[in-house]
Amino acid sequence: MRMVDLIEKKRNGQTLNKEEIDFIITAYTNGDLPDYQMSAFAMAIYFQGMTQKERVHLTEAMVNSGDQIDLSKIEGIKVDKHSTGGVGDTTTLVLGPLVAALGVAVAKMSGRGLGHTGGTIDKLEAVPGFHVEITNEEFIRLVNTNKIAVIGQSGDLTPADKKLYALRDVTATVDSIPLIASSIMSKKIAAGADAICLDVKTGNGAFMKKLEDAEELAKAMVEIGKGVGRNTKAIISDMSQPLGFAVGNALEIKEAIDTLKGKGPKDLTELCLTLGSHMVVLAEKAENLEAARTMLEEVIENGKALETFKTFLAAQGGDASVVDDPSKLPDAVHKIQVPAKENGYISEIIAENIGVAAMKLGAGRETKDSVIDLAVGIMLNKKVGDEVKKGDALATIHSNREDVQEVIDMVYDSYKTVAEKVKAPTLVYKEIH
Amino acid sequence: MRMVDLIEKKRNGQTLNKEEIDFIITAYTNGDLPDYQMSAFAMAIYFQGMTQKERVHLTEAMVNSGDQIDLSKIEGIKVDKHSTGGVGDTTTLVLGPLVAALGVAVAKMSGRGLGHTGGTIDKLEAVPGFHVEITNEEFIRLVNTNKIAVIGQSGDLTPADKKLYALRDVTATVDSIPLIASSIMSKKIAAGADAICLDVKTGNGAFMKKLEDAEELAKAMVEIGKGVGRNTKAIISDMSQPLGFAVGNALEIKEAIDTLKGKGPKDLTELCLTLGSHMVVLAEKAENLEAARTMLEEVIENGKALETFKTFLAAQGGDASVVDDPSKLPDAVHKIQVPAKENGYISEIIAENIGVAAMKLGAGRETKDSVIDLAVGIMLNKKVGDEVKKGDALATIHSNREDVQEVIDMVYDSYKTVAEKVKAPTLVYKEIH
Repeated sequence: MRMVDLIEKKRNGQTLNKEEIDFIITAYTNGDLPDYQMSAFAMAIYFQGMTQKERVHLTEAMVNSGDQIDLSKIEGIKVDKHSTGGVGDTTTLVLGPLVAALGVAVAKMSGRGLGHTGGTIDKLEAVPGFHVEITNEEFIRLVNTNKIAVIGQSGDLTPADKKLYALRDVTATVDSIPLIASSIMSKKIAAGADAICLDVKTGNGAFMKKLEDAEELAKAMVEIGKGVGRNTKAIISDMSQPLGFAVGNALEIKEAIDTLKGKGPKDLTELCLTLGSHMVVLAEKAENLEAARTMLEEVIENGKALETFKTFLAAQGGDASVVDDPSKLPDAVHKIQVPAKENGYISEIIAENIGVAAMKLGAGRETKDSVIDLAVGIMLNKKVGDEVKKGDALATIHSNREDVQEVIDMVYDSYKTVAEKVKAPTLVYKEIH
Repeated sequence: MRMVDLIEKKRNGQTLNKEEIDFIITAYTNGDLPDYQMSAFAMAIYFQGMTQKERVHLTEAMVNSGDQIDLSKIEGIKVDKHSTGGVGDTTTLVLGPLVAALGVAVAKMSGRGLGHTGGTIDKLEAVPGFHVEITNEEFIRLVNTNKIAVIGQSGDLTPADKKLYALRDVTATVDSIPLIASSIMSKKIAAGADAICLDVKTGNGAFMKKLEDAEELAKAMVEIGKGVGRNTKAIISDMSQPLGFAVGNALEIKEAIDTLKGKGPKDLTELCLTLGSHMVVLAEKAENLEAARTMLEEVIENGKALETFKTFLAAQGGDASVVDDPSKLPDAVHKIQVPAKENGYISEIIAENIGVAAMKLGAGRETKDSVIDLAVGIMLNKKVGDEVKKGDALATIHSNREDVQEVIDMVYDSYKTVAEKVKAPTLVYKEIH
């Protein structure tokens, strides 16, 4: 088999079989296939696409390229959730304790990474004492006992995907549905999930700006999941403005606590109930989505969700008293309100800009070596559809430095105000089975 | 400027400007741009094409990437001919002396390279004593005196093209009209041609199997030529069977001598007159093609073309007496006829196979280190349209080894015989101005 012939085959719109795709991914992982052939191949895929079968073969080949996490010692169906990214997305923090309270096993392996705010682990580290340096055995024991634990990424998962993603990033071959879908799914599968619940974001703050692209990606991932025997569901949700009010690490922990108490932002609560219902059904803890939703509302109301969060934090060294007294969380020195310049209705909040503004404050990593300030971030006071009077706070900047003019300007650039009434955007556009 | 953005621009079907293309080619030549970005870019060009302006910019950038030959000390308009390759193509050997006899300056820089037979220099070396190891000054003096000289390739012409071609070869990005056209044209322009006459081959023995593809390539090259201020014409000629009868080095020299004497194969003679007419007009030695053709026929008839060939050979150390006594040329030990197995008419001769058969005998280089046997090759006795009786020689194998069964089989595989009369193929399909 010669790589040049396989590139030509794909370039000409023909279909590659399992043996051919395995050959490519194995050779690439081993360093036997040069980057210049792989990038030409990726560009051919960009233009010619991949069939459903090819996508499954590619995903499986990437899973097999490295280590796979064995979660078989954890009882029950392990359901993993994945969001395609966005700004101020606190769902993971809420969903974990929420579904664990209903007996769904949440065995979360998480990273730090680059971004507007830290990763899930960074956020949780805003709770004094909390740490993820636990052994695999301890991790499994904790999930079996408490139904929830978080561990840092270990092992060499999907090295083929890591290498290919880095190459795609510099060769303009990132935005290809088959390549995005197989990349995401290979990571979830290697991490040991039995079932997968996907939250595909759409709107100006998401990677998929258009609903139809988000839908295509969601369908592609659901089909791959089914193709490899993992029950997979997806929803498409709005990211045309940041989710909830908080964008920042400690700020999002506070918001998660509020939400688990039933006092969270309306959109965040609704999205958690929607995704949570799917997870509960996927874990076979409820017959249908309606029943699951009722159960979730119950554990919020009777405090069981919040209790599970406390147990989880304490089990990994965290000071669970922050749940009752969030003032113990890191707090920024300066709180600077950004006042509205005119009367009207908020018609748009460019989520991407708010995210970058939070990163400028120190909430996220611009490079691998950036140090995160867990206290800082942005609290939105107004969201799309809200009425606003001149002088009202649009948002509040939580900062540990005084000069935030650049951030104030970015907040102003993100908010659009119009004279006519505006409807709040749809939150969940579609469910893909 | 970031290469990833330029790849994306091309991928999205946008047009690159001169500055952007210069940036890419300069960086690639200098080793500042990795192969993996260049191959993704080439694949994007494969799918999105290039505008006329982009092709001109690319060609110029490749010309500027290395040395350029200065032929300004040679009087008159320097016309170069280029053929896109084929089997048994003796035109260069005939055309040089033919148009030089009319005062057209033929300053030929030639190589050896891989292929079914040797390059022009290898073929000429079948003439005892002939050599191309002459200085640039001697080369220019000879062209000014005799109107024709051949020199080996020197200097570093179009290094960007060499590097890009090698990359395209292993990334399935060879068959892209803009890339082929700019590659060929950049080499001709760097070699110092004022005007260019192109012979684009089509048919089973050519790179462009289909007439419409050959036409697209011819148009692309003519437009690039005009775009960079070099008068350029193209013809599209048949390569559905080998040209002339001879495929081999000394064999083609004999055939060239025959043709210059007016006794050559009909198709080869006709193609030389057609291409020659264009060259004479491009060199402004005749008003129009009809006048040029008449002049060419005259120098064949009055022996001036043959005389020019002798002068040329002698000036570079060659034994010009081979022209009057071709038996002085290298001659193979064995001449093995391949007899027809049935009565009928020849309907096809797969040129590619005949070429490979000649290479197997030792007429060409399979690898850079192969040693060429100048004596061996294949003489076709029958061509498409010829009637053949069982036992007639289809072809004669000239070999220096006895066991040629493999070559005989290849000759049989190349010839197709049918019961009905067959018309000889059209020789010149089109002229592109």
